[in-house]
Amino acid sequence: MTILGLHYIGGERHAAGTLLYSSDAVTGERYPVSFHEATEAEGAAAVLAAHRAFPVFRATSPADRAALLETIADEIDALDQAFIAAASRETALPPARLEGERKRTTSQLRMFATTVRRGDFLDVRIDRAQPARQPLPRPDLRQYRVGVGPVAVFGAGNFPLAFSVAGGDTASALAAGCPVVVKAHPGHMVTSEYVASAIERAIARTNAPAGVFNMVFGTASAGAALVRAPHIKAVGFTGSLAVGRALFDMAQARPDPIPVFAEMSSVNPVFLMPSALSSRGAQIARELAASVTFGCGQLCTNPGLVLGIRSPAFDAFVAELSKALALAEPLPMLGAGIRDNFQRGLAGLRDIPGVEALVSKQADGRIGGHLLKADRSALFAEERALEEEVFGPSTVIVALDSEDDFLAFAERMRGQLTATLMADDGDLRHHAALVERLEGKVGRLLFNGYPTGVEVSDAIVHGGPYPATTDARGTSVGSAAMERFLRPVCYQNYPDPLLPPALRERNPWQLPRLIDGVPTRAAQQDAHDLEAAA
Amino acid sequence: MTILGLHYIGGERHAAGTLLYSSDAVTGERYPVSFHEATEAEGAAAVLAAHRAFPVFRATSPADRAALLETIADEIDALDQAFIAAASRETALPPARLEGERKRTTSQLRMFATTVRRGDFLDVRIDRAQPARQPLPRPDLRQYRVGVGPVAVFGAGNFPLAFSVAGGDTASALAAGCPVVVKAHPGHMVTSEYVASAIERAIARTNAPAGVFNMVFGTASAGAALVRAPHIKAVGFTGSLAVGRALFDMAQARPDPIPVFAEMSSVNPVFLMPSALSSRGAQIARELAASVTFGCGQLCTNPGLVLGIRSPAFDAFVAELSKALALAEPLPMLGAGIRDNFQRGLAGLRDIPGVEALVSKQADGRIGGHLLKADRSALFAEERALEEEVFGPSTVIVALDSEDDFLAFAERMRGQLTATLMADDGDLRHHAALVERLEGKVGRLLFNGYPTGVEVSDAIVHGGPYPATTDARGTSVGSAAMERFLRPVCYQNYPDPLLPPALRERNPWQLPRLIDGVPTRAAQQDAHDLEAAA
Repeated sequence: MTILGLHYIGGERHAAGTLLYSSDAVTGERYPVSFHEATEAEGAAAVLAAHRAFPVFRATSPADRAALLETIADEIDALDQAFIAAASRETALPPARLEGERKRTTSQLRMFATTVRRGDFLDVRIDRAQPARQPLPRPDLRQYRVGVGPVAVFGAGNFPLAFSVAGGDTASALAAGCPVVVKAHPGHMVTSEYVASAIERAIARTNAPAGVFNMVFGTASAGAALVRAPHIKAVGFTGSLAVGRALFDMAQARPDPIPVFAEMSSVNPVFLMPSALSSRGAQIARELAASVTFGCGQLCTNPGLVLGIRSPAFDAFVAELSKALALAEPLPMLGAGIRDNFQRGLAGLRDIPGVEALVSKQADGRIGGHLLKADRSALFAEERALEEEVFGPSTVIVALDSEDDFLAFAERMRGQLTATLMADDGDLRHHAALVERLEGKVGRLLFNGYPTGVEVSDAIVHGGPYPATTDARGTSVGSAAMERFLRPVCYQNYPDPLLPPALRERNPWQLPRLIDGVPTRAAQQDAHDLEAAA
Repeated sequence: MTILGLHYIGGERHAAGTLLYSSDAVTGERYPVSFHEATEAEGAAAVLAAHRAFPVFRATSPADRAALLETIADEIDALDQAFIAAASRETALPPARLEGERKRTTSQLRMFATTVRRGDFLDVRIDRAQPARQPLPRPDLRQYRVGVGPVAVFGAGNFPLAFSVAGGDTASALAAGCPVVVKAHPGHMVTSEYVASAIERAIARTNAPAGVFNMVFGTASAGAALVRAPHIKAVGFTGSLAVGRALFDMAQARPDPIPVFAEMSSVNPVFLMPSALSSRGAQIARELAASVTFGCGQLCTNPGLVLGIRSPAFDAFVAELSKALALAEPLPMLGAGIRDNFQRGLAGLRDIPGVEALVSKQADGRIGGHLLKADRSALFAEERALEEEVFGPSTVIVALDSEDDFLAFAERMRGQLTATLMADDGDLRHHAALVERLEGKVGRLLFNGYPTGVEVSDAIVHGGPYPATTDARGTSVGSAAMERFLRPVCYQNYPDPLLPPALRERNPWQLPRLIDGVPTRAAQQDAHDLEAAA
């Protein structure tokens, strides 16, 4: 494919702004094609294209919307090895990892297609008229959920496929009936162009409105313009706390504030119960080291804080973990900026009183495993510096005095994507209080597992209270991710032909619906019989 | 009941702050008991009580939570005539209206009890482990929804029961498992004390944790303190745009922003199709006048903007509407402040070029029907002054040139709670484009009806895009109101005894659950059989 470096605006390609370049993540060498910073007019045109496509796209049937998602998946699966090679060059991620990520991305699109066909996301509720009700008749009321409107999507640098142009935010927005305007991540613009072109082909093949997908290249100001654009009605973001919060603040300061789902920052604490350390401490140390260094630690779910209780078994665990992290092969990070941030983060941790570096493996600009050890006092210090995410292959281990410290930390800790309990089955009741506190603070609780490797499914939650995200009520992975971009609308006493198909008497889309409080897939006139049979 | 004028803090009564008084809405005469402005310490104590009650309350079974809601309803139903008399004195609302509102309030609580027992709000999703999956095994994942945490509730002045202490926000928050801290509306503090005491008795009778319900009296600063309190995790508000937006901004500026559902401002446009005006213009005029003046116009769903197309039938309609509004009996408003605001709002409308007052009925401080007529140019003016809500028994009628103007206005209008289409069934397809645009702008679309009188049911939506509310994804009336206060949590590979009951293998609460993508009420080990049978 020839890379053009032009924006995707309602099916057209355009670029008039200043030049931008993509570069090799390891050598810094420029890719031989220039991209362009989106001008104000181009950003506005992309948003307008999305706005114009919205009414048509919102009204598409589940079957048509699912077909679009599946065709996007097919087109991405069909991209050739030049695509993987370009992505690997831009991100320093190995081709095998990127192939896995491509599979994750296309499975995710297909999962949303399945969810859309299932139809429960429309949450159809029908309360039939009761003309004889006293003191007042009840009108006929029919509710379903529609897309909120065009969504601005900001992909992540660390998952150039699964959390980027055709990643979870785009897939869930499209599934919800919302056109998207993607701000391509400056770290993988060539990759973004490949994926955007695949989406464009899928749109053409399925006759979807061209404005359903738009993408602009650019830096922070182009992104800010999208968040402020009046026709943008929601934002999906994955990245750092600083940028996520800035976009959130912009969106809330609009004349009409809009929802922002920013997935930002988490240290994913691991609680090591003494029982687990005694019975299999060495094994946990090795597995945990693998989780810390997986993908050079560049994962939102990287376990960055490990809590144990001082004991000989704990000391043995620290020794084993040190050994395993020191063995991890140094790898190039996503780019020089990420690497510099990692170094700064590490230096910040080392400056905290009571923190000591145990392992610090680096060579030739490549980064291996890092381990720091912190005192109890550092964990409970007022500034909570140990709860700041350091993005890379490092973790901080803390020796506590007792299990009461676990409870005290769980009570005060900030919101997290995950928390993990390592324990033996024997004394489970004993941990109920800790689990209860963690449930109030995280999106996902793991038992004897490792937080990296987020399943894409109905039951997964990739979200959590602030600062893990800006809205604990959402998840950015899994079929429930669509709910972030849906809002309810109610039709009162509407004649059947004017109702959207989802709400019509004959249930043409065969949706599951709640009719007078009873769930059914039947057409409305049959619902009464079903109810009687229930 | 003896009114004490003390705050409700975790089951205790307390007040140390400066004095506040309740007064007769008509005479301004003080109620012979003083209330108190909540001190900073009292506000904090109320929030702490809610925070402490949260873990226990969050974990209650649907049956126990439903029993609490029903017992609150019973206790409010049992309040004697002194309660209705006090509410009538504080708000100038007639006793019959307040009796109706009491019924609405207690039905609403019972509806949430039914919804809680139905269990679908928990949205349980189970993806069972697939240990043999390639290339990686799938873990066992179980998601349900839990309350977000303590909710600060700000009741409305115009519904001292249904949108106040035990109104929709409190009922939906409790149903979702969230303790509440109510800031009592200064316009009906005696009424609030009656209702708060009823809730307190219900809590005692059902052995719920005392901190599940808290209420403080106070002015704006006491409310602001609640919104800023770290343990408050969401806000429910009904009232003016200015106050709603201020609370929203405060909540978003917190170190950890929290969701705010503020229902604020709507002019509820009515679109009069020529067909309807020709066939039954006079009837619509009379019914519309009744809707405009119902409850002295002090309703969020008051139809404040009526759009027609110039024609003899339209002129006749305006004449009939003027007559009907001039006949409406003047009534006292909720208080002098509301009345002053109404007068200011009317004056503002009259100052707009192209606006003319047709009916302005007032007598002895009582307010009757008001009608203003505006030119097309005033409707499309850049400052959108006709879209500003004027809270009271008034409406603005606009003569447009053609149905294209309907489309143009629907395209540019702000978010609304409702929009109403008055039309004959004959030419429905003709209106599809208008309906589509309105769907993007409102929470509820009515056909040949009047927006006042909001049904409480599964299918109702009382919400809409900004400035109708601060979050179009919610409704503050109906069973879906609970969803504003729920967030998903996922358990990965947890042993059954440590799981919350909703997620356990045997499905002890007999919930509807989505197991491996298939909806079922069965216990987990039976789900496979069901799936095979489906």
